[in-house]
Parts: sequence; structure tokens; C-alpha cells
Amino acid sequence: FSNLLPAPGGEELTRGFLQEVVDILLGYISKSSQRSSKVLDFHHPHQLKEGLECFSLDLPDQPETLEQILVDCRDTLKYGVRTGHPRFLNQLSSGLDVVGVAGEWLTSTANTNMFTYEVSPVFVLMEECLLKKMQSILGWSDDVGDGIFCPGGTISNLYSILVARYHFYPEVKTRGMGVLPQLALFTSEQSHYSVKKSAAVLGMGSENVFMVKCDERPASVLSHQALVPFYVNATAGTTVYGAFDPLNAIADICQRYTLWMHVDAAWGGGLLMSDRHKMKLQGIERACSVTWNPHKMMGVPLQCSAILVKKRGLLQECNDFGAEYLFQTDKNYDVSYDTGDKSIQCGRHVDVFKLWLMWKAKGSEGFGSQVNKCLENAEYLYDQLQRRTDFELVLKNKPEHSNVCFWYIPPSLRGQPPGPDRDARLHQVAPRIKGRMMEKGSVMIGYQPLGDKVNFFRCVFSNPATQQEDIDFLLDEITRLGDI
Amino acid sequence: FSNLLPAPGGEELTRGFLQEVVDILLGYISKSSQRSSKVLDFHHPHQLKEGLECFSLDLPDQPETLEQILVDCRDTLKYGVRTGHPRFLNQLSSGLDVVGVAGEWLTSTANTNMFTYEVSPVFVLMEECLLKKMQSILGWSDDVGDGIFCPGGTISNLYSILVARYHFYPEVKTRGMGVLPQLALFTSEQSHYSVKKSAAVLGMGSENVFMVKCDERPASVLSHQALVPFYVNATAGTTVYGAFDPLNAIADICQRYTLWMHVDAAWGGGLLMSDRHKMKLQGIERACSVTWNPHKMMGVPLQCSAILVKKRGLLQECNDFGAEYLFQTDKNYDVSYDTGDKSIQCGRHVDVFKLWLMWKAKGSEGFGSQVNKCLENAEYLYDQLQRRTDFELVLKNKPEHSNVCFWYIPPSLRGQPPGPDRDARLHQVAPRIKGRMMEKGSVMIGYQPLGDKVNFFRCVFSNPATQQEDIDFLLDEITRLGDI
Repeated sequence: FSNLLPAPGGEELTRGFLQEVVDILLGYISKSSQRSSKVLDFHHPHQLKEGLECFSLDLPDQPETLEQILVDCRDTLKYGVRTGHPRFLNQLSSGLDVVGVAGEWLTSTANTNMFTYEVSPVFVLMEECLLKKMQSILGWSDDVGDGIFCPGGTISNLYSILVARYHFYPEVKTRGMGVLPQLALFTSEQSHYSVKKSAAVLGMGSENVFMVKCDERPASVLSHQALVPFYVNATAGTTVYGAFDPLNAIADICQRYTLWMHVDAAWGGGLLMSDRHKMKLQGIERACSVTWNPHKMMGVPLQCSAILVKKRGLLQECNDFGAEYLFQTDKNYDVSYDTGDKSIQCGRHVDVFKLWLMWKAKGSEGFGSQVNKCLENAEYLYDQLQRRTDFELVLKNKPEHSNVCFWYIPPSLRGQPPGPDRDARLHQVAPRIKGRMMEKGSVMIGYQPLGDKVNFFRCVFSNPATQQEDIDFLLDEITRLGDI
Repeated sequence: FSNLLPAPGGEELTRGFLQEVVDILLGYISKSSQRSSKVLDFHHPHQLKEGLECFSLDLPDQPETLEQILVDCRDTLKYGVRTGHPRFLNQLSSGLDVVGVAGEWLTSTANTNMFTYEVSPVFVLMEECLLKKMQSILGWSDDVGDGIFCPGGTISNLYSILVARYHFYPEVKTRGMGVLPQLALFTSEQSHYSVKKSAAVLGMGSENVFMVKCDERPASVLSHQALVPFYVNATAGTTVYGAFDPLNAIADICQRYTLWMHVDAAWGGGLLMSDRHKMKLQGIERACSVTWNPHKMMGVPLQCSAILVKKRGLLQECNDFGAEYLFQTDKNYDVSYDTGDKSIQCGRHVDVFKLWLMWKAKGSEGFGSQVNKCLENAEYLYDQLQRRTDFELVLKNKPEHSNVCFWYIPPSLRGQPPGPDRDARLHQVAPRIKGRMMEKGSVMIGYQPLGDKVNFFRCVFSNPATQQEDIDFLLDEITRLGDI
């Protein structure tokens, strides 16, 4: 490796080596899009740790050869999971957008940091441009709006609570929670666990997050007299069901009681790109802050998540500490572009370029078509499930997002009356089938229990490569694996 | 783009397009290692925003052509900063390791998430393997040690405060800071601003972070009677001077008063790879937690930062919320490998593969040589500065790390007596030269004031591509630009 660049004369070897890596990656990309490829080649942790053929995880004292490095690359991909496969339906993030991948390759080659314009002139401006576009899609007027890209939706939601707290109690920054009243946060029972997790991190206590039942009248939550309510999280696209909270009704409450309204649209935000589906987020323009993850429904490679904050300047005030070694005020350019002090991070990965490049390549309309395609897939699956007697839908209504939740009813349970006995047996069906699925590697789909409902499958579509034939295959495969 | 994969027959177009992107990137890499290339092609924000030739930041409704996407890629690199250039000495992270870049290209192609073994079998095990190795290098025994890779050193430092607080006051997770005494944190005046920033985020208040003067006896800091001290941050490699706190002396205090000892070795951790320099971190084995950023002194592409925690299980207990849709306990494999609930994030980018691959390619010894090389560069610069009358060292002692801090004294100030007038004029020298440097694009180096010292240059070496000739060039170039 001492012969690769920057070694003198390392040019040819470097090009040759990187080209071989690229050939491996191109082969992987093309194979991942073929239905004849497995989604994964499953091994248990102990099997991978013991080492397989030429593949060892151990870190050596002495260098390995370049040939071995290439073998390591091949094996890493071989034993991984093809999240870009059209039959990977396991996660809200899936697919492998070719332009997005190109964007990420360039990002890692540019290898820079978002903290200052000085070292990221182009990427800082791209971030500004993307945030403005997203704000205008939310329906915010030009004279409001701020935001930042950050490492995932949970951190975006954490930002929302952080800035809300600072907005009402700016003294918290210097003096801490000790000088504040006991604060209460509200979110729906089916919201993402990040609201509780973030409240714990921020020193607010997870038990001060009140989980509102989905059928509860929102006003009744305000009767917790000992605490001071200040923050409401509404979800646009819940993780399991893909459900949308009634944003306008929540906004009315927030307005009446002067509460911060956050909308977690990590998953549902993508629907704003579709003329057909954006009305599901009506009222989002009234939110004080919004989480929106382009790495989910818009198919952008991981990670790409934005927190959008309506009140301009709040992120900066809440988080800045003006480190002079980084944010010098006597630079030769307009230092308002040194946006790093808005962040709770110091160094910050460039997450914007791949999204910017995909936007150039698809246009807003292309994102809209992708979203429509994924929701059509969900409707198709919903229709198929209604027709089949070996499956049962968890929710009877047409899906609002691309989540479809269902049970597979194996022959032994069909016709058995509902009750604890049937529930106990049904609870074991999805994990057993999922295990077989992974070992066979033919398809991947998630499952979980929720509330009083025993383990059920959740299928989600965010990869536009998935076709109706994959959905047919999924149901047939579940039947095959379930009847073993 | 509808003709790229996954479109039927998109194979050839996809390969062709990605190959063209790769050719652009290979050209960039090779040019970045040439001293005849500029480090940057500076433009002011308004110039880039107005658009330059074919380059426009605007996001379209309709797709652009693939040809235009390639132009966009070229232009993005053209107007950026070559952080891999041997004369980019501006940041603690620099250089462009070819194997690291290959690792990052593969990571983005695999496009997966660290939260579960299910979707990241290989990467989860690589993380475990790297953490164990790093713990053993710290000198921790096999039966202790835990950790996680996270988005940057500031978040790693935030974790250290978070787990320390939970360790002493586990009720904070559910009940919040309101039920705790007023806590105090201690750190040195010259430590990174992330300690204060994190204390603010965590609801502890930045004014409860006490900045200990570097010549103050550590024991005297414990006299703040109204507050309960619980956490001490020691720095191994400060940001500006590269100084090392006396870890054993601090550990003695922490042991005596039962305080959490964190070592921020984000910058200095790399020296542990060098037999020649690791003694500067003596006592680090006594820390309760350590931040170590391989993306700094070890030359790993951004981002790659680890928080290491001695007490096993603490990260999990502190952060877990057991979301059932993700961390099902009835999976077909050992779910202790689903490490995602240790994190304050939900989705988490794969930051480990590039480090793992570089470790394979260099071995521990290769990292050691790289570190030695960078510190030799610092000594060479120090020697040169001592010999020249147009420069003045900020610290008279030989640098402990690769930071070298100095003033350029322009002819008009030479011989002028020390005092406020000279200081005021000297304060303007570095920013003025830095501005000219950026406009010319020949070299990049940082500057800042610190304490009672007016603006001075800070040169840091973390790119092993930098040679003595670059250091000579730097000093000559400063002289040239300073005398205009």
C-alpha cells in the first residue's frame, strides 16, 4: 500500500486497484437487481466470527496484500444483505438508486466536512438550496424557515425537542433543566420511540412523554396539571401502520395552548412530492418543526435526514458556542455561511450531495412518480390480501402510506375461533416464517406485535424496483414457508 | 434515468454511467495528489449562487440529462476544496487514503444500517472487532469494555456525559434532571467546545461546566460546594496546541472523589498506534470512557469516531427503549448482536468498514508509521520556525502532537516592541494572509486567537502525503503573501 497514491509513481497502481474495486461494486449492483439472486446469504454471528474460507474479521499487525483486500471486499458483500434487491421489503429504507450511489461515491472522494464554507463551499450552498426547496414544499413562506441535515430521523426529532425547549426557556442553555418547571411532551402511542429516547437524552425524562391513545380526544391530554405541557409530536406516517395524525386538529390544539407542534414526517414526508398523496399531510405548514428523511420514501442512500425549523435563527441561538478556532469572524468571506454552529455536532458528514444530484436527475416530478409507484404496490398487496383466505389484514382500510400489515394464517389455525389460544399460536407464526425466509434468502419482510395484536408481518415499499410479480412471490413464499 | 437499473435492460447504461463517474473521481484523486494542482478554486458564496457557466444549484421539476449530471459532478469537485492535497493543512482531518476511499465506496453501495444484525451482519461484527481492538490498545482488560461508533467526536463526547450521568443517577432516564442535584462538570480551558455544547444539549447547562485553567491545581476545582461534581473531561491532544493533559494526575483526583473520568482523545488517540508516541497518553487505561476519532490522526475518511466505555452494558441500559418493530426478541439468531438500542440514534450509518479495510491494508504497524511521519513533519516545521527570524513560535517547547502554532511577523512589525499596538496589528496579519491564500488556492492552514494571544497560525499534519518540501513551501508562501 505504500505504493498506492500518494506514493511517487503510484498513479497506475491506484487506478488499477480502484478500478478492480469498482468492478466488484458494479457486479454487485447488477446482481442485486436480478430476481434470481438471493437477498442474503444468511450466517449466524458465530459462523461469521469463526471465519469462512478466506474471510477473517481479525485485524492484523502487518499489512495484507492488495489481492487479499479485494477478496475482503467481495466477501463483505457476499455475507451482507442486498438492501437494493427488489424483494428486500424489510425496512423503510431500501433500494439502490444509481445516481444516489454515484453521489455518495463522489461525496466520499471529496471527503470533507459541513462545518464551514471554507472547506465545503459547494456542499454548504447545496444544503441551503435543498432546505429552502423542502420548506417551500412544506408550504412555509419565503421569510421563514431554517434547518439542517443530520444523522438520521431520531437525531432530527431530538433537535425538535431541543429547539422547542430553548424557544420557551432560553435560560436552559446555560443554566440547565434545574431552573425550569417540570415539562411534559405529548405524542401518539404509535409514534416512533425516538421521542421518548430523545427526552431521556435531553434530561427531560421519558416518563414525562405522554403517549396519547390514538382514539383519545387530544384536549384531554392537557389535564396533567402538575406538569407544564410545551411540545406535541404528530406523526405523518407511523413506522408500523404508516398512519397519519390529523395535523390540522393537532395544530388547533397547539395554537390554543401555545404548544410547539412538531411533525415527524421522517417516513411520510416523501408523500409531499406526489400530487396524488400530499393531501395526507394537510396542516403540516402549521408545524413549528418537521423531520423529513429523504433516505426513506425518496430512495436516497443512507443517511439523509433533515430537521426543518420554522423560526429562523433558533437553531443557531440554541446551539452556538462560537469556537474561535473554527468559526473565526474575521474571514475573507461572508461567515453567515459557516453554518456548523447550528449543529449539535462539530464535524458533520456531507449528506446533501446525493440528494441534490438525484433531484437534478429526476426532478421533483420523478420523485413524485417513485412515490406513486410505491403506493400502488401497497394497494396491489392490499387487494391481493383481501382476496386470499390464507391471509388476514391487520387494518381493514386501504393503506394510507406504503405499509401493509397482515397475518399469515397457517392451515392448522384456519377456522379456529379467536381467543388467547389462537393468539398464542399465531404469535409464533411470523417469527418462524421470517427465520426460514432469512435462511433461504429469498425475500425479506419485517414483523412485530403492536398493542394487543400478536406478531404480524409489515410489508413496506420504498424501492421503485419492486414490481407486482415480487408481491405475488412474497405471498406465495410465505405460504410455502408457513406450511413446512 | 428511467433507463438506468433497475429498468429492464438498464445494465449497460448503468455500467457506462457509473464508469464515467469513476473516471471523473479517479482524475480528481490523481490531480489532488499533484503539487501543481491548486488546493482550491475559491469563489464567494454569492458567486457560486449566481451560477457559473454550466453550474447551477437550482433544483428542477424536470429531469436533467445524464450528460448534465456528469457535468454537475465535475463542477462540484471543481469548486470544492481538495482536502486530500498534500498542502491542505487546515483541519485535523485531511488526506485521502485510497483504501479508505474504496471502503467508503463499498459502504455506500451496500447502503445499509447498523441497527440490527439482520440487515448488517458483517458490519455489526466488524464494529465489535474494531471496538475490542481499540479497547485492548487503550490497555483495558478483556473482561471490560464497550463502545459504539457515532457521528463525530462531539457526539462521542456527548455520550460520555450521558452515560456518566446515568451511571451515577439512573433515575434520570425516566424522571429527568428535575430529580437530580445540580451537577458540575470539569474540563480544561483548552478542551474542545463540545463539552459545553453537550452539557447544554443534555439539559445540564453550559455554566455548570467549569473550565479549569491549565496551570490550576486540579484539586482546587472541587471547592464549588453548591454543586455536585461528577464528571471530568481530560483532553489527549487539544484542538489548537495538541497538548496532553496529565492523565494519571487527573485519574488520581477522579478516583479519590469518585468522579467519572472521560478522556477526549479524538485527536490524540491516533498516537496510541505509535510505539514512539503512545506514552503521551499514559493513564488512559484508567479512564471510564474515551473518545477516539480514527478520521483524524489515522487518516480514515470522514466520519469515523468511537466512544469507548469501560463499564460493559452501560450504553445499552442508558439508551435502550426496546422498540419491538426493530428489536424483536424472538428472532432466529442471537439478538445480543442487535446493538442498535445502545445508540441515541435509530438508523446509524456504517462508519466501520473503511477503518476495518484500512487496518487490513496497513496493519497496526502501518498506522504507527503514518503517525510517526506526521509528527516528524511537525518537528521539521518547528525546527524551521526556530531558525527563521520572520516567524515566531507561540509555544517554545517541541510540539507534543502534530500541531505547530506560530505568528508570521511582517517586515513592518519586526523590531516593534511588544504591547497593545503591536498586538492589534499582529492580530490582523493571519486573517489577511489566509484570505490571500484562499484566493490564490496554493495552500490552506488555519488560524485563531487563544486566550490572551492574538491571531496565530495553527499548522496540523494528519496527511502522510505531506512532505518537507510542502512545509518549506508553506513558510515561503506565507512570507510572499504577507509582504504584499
